[in-house]
Amino acid sequence: MNASYTPSLLERRRATLGTHTPLFYDTPLELVSGKGVWLRGIDGKRYLDAYNNVPHVGHGHPAVANAVSRQMRKLALNTRYLHPGVVDYAERLLATFDGPLDRVAFGNSGSEANELAIRMARFASGHTGLLMSDFSYHGTTLTLAQATTGLRTSEALGENVRTIRIPDSTGLDTAAAEHLLASSLAEVDAAIESLQQAGFGVAAVLFDPLFSTEGLVKPPAGYVEGLIARVHRAGGLYIADEVQSGFGRIGRLMWGHELFDAKPDIVTMGKPMGNGHPLSATVMGADLLETFGAENMFFNTFAGNPVSAAAGDAVLRVMEDEQLLPRAASNGELLKRELTRALSDNPRIKEVRGDGLFAGMRFTDPDTGEAAPTTAKQVVEAMYRDRVLISRVGREGEVLKIRPPLAFEREHAELLVSKLTRIIHAL
Amino acid sequence: MNASYTPSLLERRRATLGTHTPLFYDTPLELVSGKGVWLRGIDGKRYLDAYNNVPHVGHGHPAVANAVSRQMRKLALNTRYLHPGVVDYAERLLATFDGPLDRVAFGNSGSEANELAIRMARFASGHTGLLMSDFSYHGTTLTLAQATTGLRTSEALGENVRTIRIPDSTGLDTAAAEHLLASSLAEVDAAIESLQQAGFGVAAVLFDPLFSTEGLVKPPAGYVEGLIARVHRAGGLYIADEVQSGFGRIGRLMWGHELFDAKPDIVTMGKPMGNGHPLSATVMGADLLETFGAENMFFNTFAGNPVSAAAGDAVLRVMEDEQLLPRAASNGELLKRELTRALSDNPRIKEVRGDGLFAGMRFTDPDTGEAAPTTAKQVVEAMYRDRVLISRVGREGEVLKIRPPLAFEREHAELLVSKLTRIIHAL
Repeated sequence: MNASYTPSLLERRRATLGTHTPLFYDTPLELVSGKGVWLRGIDGKRYLDAYNNVPHVGHGHPAVANAVSRQMRKLALNTRYLHPGVVDYAERLLATFDGPLDRVAFGNSGSEANELAIRMARFASGHTGLLMSDFSYHGTTLTLAQATTGLRTSEALGENVRTIRIPDSTGLDTAAAEHLLASSLAEVDAAIESLQQAGFGVAAVLFDPLFSTEGLVKPPAGYVEGLIARVHRAGGLYIADEVQSGFGRIGRLMWGHELFDAKPDIVTMGKPMGNGHPLSATVMGADLLETFGAENMFFNTFAGNPVSAAAGDAVLRVMEDEQLLPRAASNGELLKRELTRALSDNPRIKEVRGDGLFAGMRFTDPDTGEAAPTTAKQVVEAMYRDRVLISRVGREGEVLKIRPPLAFEREHAELLVSKLTRIIHAL
Repeated sequence: MNASYTPSLLERRRATLGTHTPLFYDTPLELVSGKGVWLRGIDGKRYLDAYNNVPHVGHGHPAVANAVSRQMRKLALNTRYLHPGVVDYAERLLATFDGPLDRVAFGNSGSEANELAIRMARFASGHTGLLMSDFSYHGTTLTLAQATTGLRTSEALGENVRTIRIPDSTGLDTAAAEHLLASSLAEVDAAIESLQQAGFGVAAVLFDPLFSTEGLVKPPAGYVEGLIARVHRAGGLYIADEVQSGFGRIGRLMWGHELFDAKPDIVTMGKPMGNGHPLSATVMGADLLETFGAENMFFNTFAGNPVSAAAGDAVLRVMEDEQLLPRAASNGELLKRELTRALSDNPRIKEVRGDGLFAGMRFTDPDTGEAAPTTAKQVVEAMYRDRVLISRVGREGEVLKIRPPLAFEREHAELLVSKLTRIIHAL
């Protein structure tokens, strides 16, 4: 087999899942298996996975697979029965948070985690307004579709939603950054006032602390803290969506919100949590959960079942046993340093971005300075032909998205950089 | 160990999952393992599971556990890569539907399945109004909380939601049933008119074809068909929520909606689908999916991953190999016949209800004829002490809910009936 996929399989897929269910790449990639940071295609070739954060501790990690297998044979039932597995896991997970973030409600997807966070914020604040980044995505449900600004949806923005532009201070000098900070916080003030005048008030601001969808933009120092202080003054909550930024993705720290001097009221998480097993969580303080629980009979059938708990627990144990946080920190630094060294003189590359094992690289037109999504797409496709998997983010899709499993090592970073350098220089 | 749970575990659970996360029974049951229709408690005793529909083909079924184990070791990645597993499963699942129900979108929970159904109905109809049963529950999200009428939620009913009472013709003669049919359909007409006059129009009616939460009520012949014809005339869609009624629960038929002479536009399913693995689906015709997909970039990270597909596929294969549909039909008939025989003369029991392996039994006060939820609760707790697990549904919680895994056999039905008879006669 030489082609990267089986044409008849693609036809059968279209006849069952439809023609719009998205596939990566101009020519799809059909996968057979995965191990660590490597994927095996139907073409018999190995692909370096520098994109997927779901297989957090590595594809097919035996510790997670064994934990799931064992528990699946033993019991997979809901939390209306007592079971030590979910409690053990809840304790281990909550131990990674500081202070009042001491209660957890499990779910099965990032969408479910964000839905519960929004329900709790509405309940706790007595308000319904949502403040969202103007280029973001937080899930598949109706409420989240009505708050989606970063991808195509037929739902109009909710009447109770106001959007703000997350300012990017990358490359700005101090004076320019301070000016941007002031104007951006004025935009926040205006959005909050608009929500209040319309009678919605502010229930919450919800964002990804890495601003991944936005293209890994870096707001000026003090912006996030100023935003949250304003939301709090308006009686709203700060929800940190750590679906992408959590579980050590940023290296030295477990959670993306730790990048800022502001504490979330609610933290949501998903993708990497179960190394592929559907698992998510909403973490909050006891006050929030207890007051909400008194007025809401909340129960999620699959959430927190012993198999899901076993998967999540195994991920946390492997992260500790294999020291994945410090490794992500040093390998992430290496990756960014090497990318910068190899490519920083290239006139098409505006800058290398990111934190920990999440790197971005923004392409602009060398003549006009405009965003260059076509170049970024060319690079992603050429890397795929060279058997390295990456993708794109950003307002125009002009930023490379390099977000490998946390098991990504120095040798993998070097391989990626060498291939990427060759491809970009040959453009 | 003699107690049914470990007190310190309950304390630790309260300190992590909170005090309101629901537990069954006055004294919680701590579980160790499960096999077939039997659960093992921390007290070392066996409990007959006559309640849980998630372990559809039996607790810890080796065929499902092996399929999950094998695939979890091999690959658990998303549908943006081609993989034969999800297509094989989609074909097998869609083969259980007739006619235009020929496309599927996978999810991770019944809530996600219903959310997508509602988004599609809004898109296809151009309307936003929802018609809901006035005692029902369809999921945990904000939109579904605003359409929840069957349990406690702090969210007010949505402005775009109208509720209808599902009429119960149990025990009525023909004339009374016809009168009830006419008045109930008039109520539907009024609800639709109200949605239209308020400018919402009708996007969809969403209900469980077994009306489980409502207490397994049986509408008069022609009611469901009349309801759906009216919704269709108003330009809305019929969404059948088969989370409880699907996958052969009703015995001779695979889907609850087959009880009626009306075809759903969208079918949602969840709980029993993966025998405990978080898995759900929204099934619809190609037209609906293709037009929605053209205007919506819809992607769900965990949904349809090869492990979930392996779990779902194994469930369908076991159902066929072990002939669970005909067995559910005959064991369900036996169960209802035996319950009726043993208990029909009891003045506290109004009637035995249900279809296939889903039986209800309604308690009323022998003197006043009023619903008797306290009696139903006493029976559920006494059955628990006698190590048989059942629960309650209905508007006042007065109807026993007997909904075992499909692997429930004649001997289990006889054991349940004998214990239940003894308990009820001793009341």
